[in-house]
Amino acid sequence: MFPQPSHGEEESSYREGVLRADVIPESADMHFVGRSWLLLTGFILFYVIYLLFGALVFSSIERPMEDRMRTELKALKQEFLNLSCVSDASLERFLLKVLAANKYGVSVLRNASTTSNWDLASSMFFANTLVTTVGYGHTTPLSDTGKAFSILYALIGVPFTMLVLTACVQRIMFPLVLVPLGLLQRSGLEPRPATIVHFLLLLILLVMCFFVAPAAVFSAVELSWSFLDGIYFCFISLCTIGLGDFVPGTQPNQQYRSLYQVAVMVYLFVGLMMMFLLLRTFHKMADLHGLTSFLQLPRCEESDLEEDREPIVEVGNKDLTEKEATKPLEPGSQPSYNTMNTG
Amino acid sequence: MFPQPSHGEEESSYREGVLRADVIPESADMHFVGRSWLLLTGFILFYVIYLLFGALVFSSIERPMEDRMRTELKALKQEFLNLSCVSDASLERFLLKVLAANKYGVSVLRNASTTSNWDLASSMFFANTLVTTVGYGHTTPLSDTGKAFSILYALIGVPFTMLVLTACVQRIMFPLVLVPLGLLQRSGLEPRPATIVHFLLLLILLVMCFFVAPAAVFSAVELSWSFLDGIYFCFISLCTIGLGDFVPGTQPNQQYRSLYQVAVMVYLFVGLMMMFLLLRTFHKMADLHGLTSFLQLPRCEESDLEEDREPIVEVGNKDLTEKEATKPLEPGSQPSYNTMNTG
Repeated sequence: MFPQPSHGEEESSYREGVLRADVIPESADMHFVGRSWLLLTGFILFYVIYLLFGALVFSSIERPMEDRMRTELKALKQEFLNLSCVSDASLERFLLKVLAANKYGVSVLRNASTTSNWDLASSMFFANTLVTTVGYGHTTPLSDTGKAFSILYALIGVPFTMLVLTACVQRIMFPLVLVPLGLLQRSGLEPRPATIVHFLLLLILLVMCFFVAPAAVFSAVELSWSFLDGIYFCFISLCTIGLGDFVPGTQPNQQYRSLYQVAVMVYLFVGLMMMFLLLRTFHKMADLHGLTSFLQLPRCEESDLEEDREPIVEVGNKDLTEKEATKPLEPGSQPSYNTMNTG
Repeated sequence: MFPQPSHGEEESSYREGVLRADVIPESADMHFVGRSWLLLTGFILFYVIYLLFGALVFSSIERPMEDRMRTELKALKQEFLNLSCVSDASLERFLLKVLAANKYGVSVLRNASTTSNWDLASSMFFANTLVTTVGYGHTTPLSDTGKAFSILYALIGVPFTMLVLTACVQRIMFPLVLVPLGLLQRSGLEPRPATIVHFLLLLILLVMCFFVAPAAVFSAVELSWSFLDGIYFCFISLCTIGLGDFVPGTQPNQQYRSLYQVAVMVYLFVGLMMMFLLLRTFHKMADLHGLTSFLQLPRCEESDLEEDREPIVEVGNKDLTEKEATKPLEPGSQPSYNTMNTG
């Protein structure tokens, strides 16, 4: 988008590389700056509108349900009080403690009290929801030590999990992206349509294997889950939202609970891997079809791309003048990123 | 890391670009493949060990607390039953419904019933936790329509939020990364130490402004929160784990609840932006100091970098032979990524 005069290899620098994208090139006019700010303002405005729209819909859908539940619960409480000789105040005190304990996953109910939330498999499940940032919150640390350890554990675990996921995605790129793309192109499709067909195929595969099939399994195993609940759980989990209203393996008398929890952990890991892969494939496709350049701020996009292209160390320590900063570099003349790291 | 013979511009292709990183170059030996698989196996093994380690620690910290809480609750229930004329069965039925309603954020307690979880501000807060993938789950959709809408809403909202966050991060790169880096280098620091000093300064800024200060505010505003609870909430939120055991603005009789919720939403958005910025700065620094090349699989890292460098469309539709696939391209000879998108 910007003119790219040639530039010496030695003078290439991360600082310049990005600055030239943030300071307007001599030949570029104010049009770009204006457009870029307009786009950002538009994004944020649309974001707020999107949140407001969501709020209105959720409010209109859920409020009547909530009101009904609230009324029913009130009537139930009154009925309970009428049929017993319990005073309102003592019931309130009792319920206060019941609900406080319930918040930490400790249930007052008889059949729920047989299993611990902190046996080895459940603790591992919790650790897994922490490091994958899903965070259902069906069980949460009770003690201050537990909270402090959670912070420390996630501090190391979250980046490490991302690293492992990235490494795995890089492995499955070959059989799931490159081979099918090659086959599609060999079968006579043009490159651009081929990427779309491939993306759609990958999407169908993902939806079938990681949403529909698991949802069917969950709705069969979990007694109170419908098929929609299963889909909802899969989606909320694999987006790492993790609301925690549906968590597998928490029903009382679950058979082979530990094994089931390990299976869900494996599902979550592989599912997240596939979501990463899909996202990356979509990103490539969007790049290819000019979607990113259409949507993103031109300056920022350039900056982003150039950052990836260039070594990020400044060779030499010369002062950065406005004029130097505005001089875009020829990407082709840059020393290799790899040479920088490995040399 | 691999030899990079020159290659014609026209023949450059996304397929080749990635394939050559997955198929071993002629000059490379089996050492790389072995090392790469060993590294991946090591990663996954270490991941499982890390989860097991976390499980053991969580289990040993939390289980005694849980057992104590369980015993107390049992005693409380027994005491409540003894002091009243309620039968165990009817109390159980009552509590079952109370806890089911509580799961959806509908509390049986008297002072909690004044505010709805689905007024406009609360609904917007919920929508915000969906699209940022924080997902506290303190309120969750009750109806099937609500669940279906949540899926649809997040499907559009999550990628859009990432887009807005990315656009914003690109804007704040200049004042928060490039300007300070320039100043540090002008003050006489070498480029490499300068990036470390800058990263540490940015980290301190982030911790002070987005963890310590908000935690102090939360512990002052929320009656039952300690300072550690505040730090824990900030961390769990800004990592998008969102367990939901601490959610601001849910205590009864909260003053200016709507305004408070909007403030928390703004905090979450800006905080996530800063976390993105820190992550990106760390990534750059790690690249610069050879950390990524040390940790990542060499083949995969190359593949990753080359993908960013190159146009992702295959010009021409020729067959891909093993030999062609193994020929790495000279990065410098590639046509510009920008030209591909905008041309």
